[in-house]
Amino acid sequence: MNHAFRKACQTDLVDIIRLLADDDIGQGREVVADPVDRRYQTAFDAIDADKNQLLAVAMDQKHHVVGCLQVSFIPGLSRTGTWRGQIESVRIARQARGSGLGTEFIEWAIETCRARGCKIVQLTSDKSRAGSIRFYEKLGFAASHEGLKLSL
Amino acid sequence: MNHAFRKACQTDLVDIIRLLADDDIGQGREVVADPVDRRYQTAFDAIDADKNQLLAVAMDQKHHVVGCLQVSFIPGLSRTGTWRGQIESVRIARQARGSGLGTEFIEWAIETCRARGCKIVQLTSDKSRAGSIRFYEKLGFAASHEGLKLSL
Repeated sequence: MNHAFRKACQTDLVDIIRLLADDDIGQGREVVADPVDRRYQTAFDAIDADKNQLLAVAMDQKHHVVGCLQVSFIPGLSRTGTWRGQIESVRIARQARGSGLGTEFIEWAIETCRARGCKIVQLTSDKSRAGSIRFYEKLGFAASHEGLKLSL
Repeated sequence: MNHAFRKACQTDLVDIIRLLADDDIGQGREVVADPVDRRYQTAFDAIDADKNQLLAVAMDQKHHVVGCLQVSFIPGLSRTGTWRGQIESVRIARQARGSGLGTEFIEWAIETCRARGCKIVQLTSDKSRAGSIRFYEKLGFAASHEGLKLSL
C-alpha cells in the first residue's frame, strides 16, 4: 500500500479542483485559478459543515494529492431504514492511473460506508465512461439501474 | 390540481411505510406494523434531523397520504460548486396511479430543488421499471448514466 486516504482539508482545495478539471468530461465545466473561485470555497464550506458528507483525498508517498472523491451518507426509510453511501466525483491524477490507486481508494470508501452502517453503496457513471463502468463492476457493483439526470 | 404536497411529519410514518411496502420490488424488503418497527423510527429521526434531507408526502382531497418521496440536497465541488437534488423512494398509492399525481409530485420536487439552488436533479430507477424510466424521460430526464449498486 503506497497511498494514504483522508478527509480533505482547506489546503487541498486547489489540488482537488485541478483534479476535477483534468478530466475528459469535466474539463469544460471547471475554473482553475489560485486563489480558487469563491464558488468552490462556498461549496467546500457547505460540504465541510455537513456531517453526512465526506470529501476525501488520496495522497502518494510524497504527500501529493493524487485522487479525490466525495461520499454522501444518506438516511432513508426504505429497506427497513437503510443508510446508503453514495460516491461521487471520483478523480485519479493522470500520472497515478493504472497503479491500482483507484481500486484501493474505492475499497477504502466502501469500508468507510460500512463503518458508518450503510447497507448499500451506490454511484452513477456516465455511460460514455466504459472503462469506469467495468472498473466498478469488477469491484462488485451491479449496473442494475438507469441513472437519470435533469439539468436546471 | 387535486393534490397537496408537504414535508412529512411523524404521523405520516405508518402510511409511508405502507406505500414503500406496496411495490412489486419493495414488498419483500419492508415490515408493515403499527406501531412501526423501531428501525423506521430511527431512520425517520435521522432524516428529520438533517436539513439536507426532505421526506415529502402527497395528499388527496380527503387528506389521505397517497404518495411519498425523499429529496437529498447534496453539496458538491464539481461544476464550480453545484448543488444536486437527488430524488429517491418515490411511491404512488395504487388507487392514485394514472391520475397525473406522479407528474405533479415530481414537478413539485424539481421546483423544490430549483428553489434550493440545485443545478442538477438526479435519480436512479431499477432497469426493470421500464414504465418509470419512460415517465422520467417524458419529464425531461436523460438516462445518460449507469446506476451502479453494491449491497454490503
